[in-house]
Amino acid sequence: MNDLRSKADGARVLADLNALRALGAYKTGVHRPTFSEPHVHSLQWLVGKLPEAGLAGEIDGIGNVLGMSTKAGLRLLAGSHLESQNFAGWLDGPLGVIYALEAARVINLDPGIKGAVEVASWCDEEGHFGHFLGSRSYVGDVTEQDIDTARDRTNGRAMREALQAAGLAGRPRKIVERGRHIGYLEAHIEQGRTLEGSRLGIGVVTSIIGIWQYEITFTGEQNHAGTTRMRDRRDAGLAAARLCIAIDDRFPRAAGPRTVWTTGRITLDPGAPSIIPGRAEMLFQVRDDDIAIVERLETLLRETATEIAAASGCSVEVDRIRTGRPAMMDEKFQRAIEEATSDVAGGKSVRMPSGAGHDAQVLAAIMPAGMLFVPSIDGISHHWNENTDDADIVAGAEVFVETCRRLLSS
Amino acid sequence: MNDLRSKADGARVLADLNALRALGAYKTGVHRPTFSEPHVHSLQWLVGKLPEAGLAGEIDGIGNVLGMSTKAGLRLLAGSHLESQNFAGWLDGPLGVIYALEAARVINLDPGIKGAVEVASWCDEEGHFGHFLGSRSYVGDVTEQDIDTARDRTNGRAMREALQAAGLAGRPRKIVERGRHIGYLEAHIEQGRTLEGSRLGIGVVTSIIGIWQYEITFTGEQNHAGTTRMRDRRDAGLAAARLCIAIDDRFPRAAGPRTVWTTGRITLDPGAPSIIPGRAEMLFQVRDDDIAIVERLETLLRETATEIAAASGCSVEVDRIRTGRPAMMDEKFQRAIEEATSDVAGGKSVRMPSGAGHDAQVLAAIMPAGMLFVPSIDGISHHWNENTDDADIVAGAEVFVETCRRLLSS
Repeated sequence: MNDLRSKADGARVLADLNALRALGAYKTGVHRPTFSEPHVHSLQWLVGKLPEAGLAGEIDGIGNVLGMSTKAGLRLLAGSHLESQNFAGWLDGPLGVIYALEAARVINLDPGIKGAVEVASWCDEEGHFGHFLGSRSYVGDVTEQDIDTARDRTNGRAMREALQAAGLAGRPRKIVERGRHIGYLEAHIEQGRTLEGSRLGIGVVTSIIGIWQYEITFTGEQNHAGTTRMRDRRDAGLAAARLCIAIDDRFPRAAGPRTVWTTGRITLDPGAPSIIPGRAEMLFQVRDDDIAIVERLETLLRETATEIAAASGCSVEVDRIRTGRPAMMDEKFQRAIEEATSDVAGGKSVRMPSGAGHDAQVLAAIMPAGMLFVPSIDGISHHWNENTDDADIVAGAEVFVETCRRLLSS
Repeated sequence: MNDLRSKADGARVLADLNALRALGAYKTGVHRPTFSEPHVHSLQWLVGKLPEAGLAGEIDGIGNVLGMSTKAGLRLLAGSHLESQNFAGWLDGPLGVIYALEAARVINLDPGIKGAVEVASWCDEEGHFGHFLGSRSYVGDVTEQDIDTARDRTNGRAMREALQAAGLAGRPRKIVERGRHIGYLEAHIEQGRTLEGSRLGIGVVTSIIGIWQYEITFTGEQNHAGTTRMRDRRDAGLAAARLCIAIDDRFPRAAGPRTVWTTGRITLDPGAPSIIPGRAEMLFQVRDDDIAIVERLETLLRETATEIAAASGCSVEVDRIRTGRPAMMDEKFQRAIEEATSDVAGGKSVRMPSGAGHDAQVLAAIMPAGMLFVPSIDGISHHWNENTDDADIVAGAEVFVETCRRLLSS
């Protein structure tokens, strides 16, 4: 290890993360949904920081920030996102943006390194208005019509209106310049317990698992909850509850070791205390990085739903509303993260798939991509209680900067 | 049977019911929630009809209409309600109001009968803003503070605002004049299949069952749906689904022959596709006319919820939010309905409890009360598909008028 080379400034990284935490602070986390006032403020904050890293940039027409360098040599793109889930954690997103900013500050101003890190903050990774709208816009996968029809899932506000209110309407969207970057690197909190459970400092992401999402609708017979005897009922809500339980009973036998499935929402219609639900909608998702497993589970889901509908006197529709192919991380990036960990953090890394979706899966479609994880305390995420030890945050920053240096030197 | 006596005019009853059906028409039913424009219109329509029956009245400060007579002799109060559930049936409520109006038209203008029928339309029987607010206001059981805090369960609108918009703010509320009436009579569609199934024309209500309502809240751990392994989860939504199924499994052994129970609403928090629900709320109700049975079921409910919470790593709270004592119908009223049926409709009546709540249960607390049912096609109710054969509607009107005559002559 060369002690003279410049490295990450841990105190600066923590100070920046805490500065962002103050924007939309909620308990120990943040409430910074896409295009909210604190979110736009955080983007402006980042734009103001770019010159410290020899970068220039502004917020584009979809809310992305791209800090561009004029330094000669190779260029590596690095980043994450600044908006949060509703009432959620302070590190989910900002950690990767500040690591990228720190790497850019260290590397771009170092004349000894021929190359630069360019910093990206991708808008709406958290999916308030769609799926990865910011990074997908950058790779050319979002049309103006997509933006016309997008709405905030929490309050139904049109995305055009949100862009207008944020002062971003009419700005051009930055589209990727093919060949400009040797690849894309992103850091993130693990959002699970693997690293903490095995006392490992760094997760080297091998793949980002795919998300398959379903809208399942049972239709029974809406009727009066007082006058309709139990044997005469066709209760759609009860059918939905039965499906939740049957899935939990049957999926483990057909699933892989890392498959996860979740019913995130159940809506009974009309949802009144004295009316037997005539309709029940479930929002259900399955995640895995093995398409064969998910296909097997989808067959099981459809069979189980049909069986329960028949037994409940209901009909059922199972619509797949999202088909998420898994994305593979570049082998060279994985090795660079492992070597950097071994160099600056004592070799404590482990290869693992990412159960969560990340912008890296979108970038991976057009350039080599890699991701590293730092531990999450108790694995908690998408909750204001989410956290990571300061020591782990600093160690992660050091590994990130060293990984960037290795990728630009190879 | 005396053929010279005046009787119900079936064509006039059907014409009036169809006139009301046109106010807020939705498919073959109506959407006429409390204080909506079509609801207020229906109240004004009724006020305009009262003089045909020698009555005078207006809409009072809570949306009740009370048509008062100056005729000498005994007075019988009769009525029901004019608002509907959302997107629901055309007869639930209006049938009883029009029967009362018809009885008043026939009896009040007949100098041969010493006595009068007074007509009531009770506001908000369907519980958009509370429980039986109109009839409870009339018996002196609703305070100004109750109105201050009441909100529309569909859209959250304050009741004060709704009263203002309906032009009713500041009007006095009519309160019962003790001793004015010999009792209260109400007709309603059965909303079940008992009459249709036994080919009987008239149901003689013996009691109105009580409604016990519960808000059940499971609290687990909100977490990321991709990164949290199945074995690490404390999914509150799954616990709620398990409770629904366990209730359906265990209740039949402890319930009575007519007990019914319903989960009308399930809310998963935060309700997003990629977040494991940290909280789940169920709105659950039990109905029976036997308090001992309901008390036994409540104990079973609490035990089952606690057991499932423990097995799911969640905590649970079971709050009883409504305690509905059953109401007994007056024996003399029951006999009068039976005799009237035998006199004008061939004797086809059956005694039965009411599984649904009705304003008669509120009036029963201060005066003798009775109810009669007409058949519901397929037992459908609280749905725009609700209906009754015209012949059954007319036969019911004849029995209703004859019952009023008998009660006033006794």
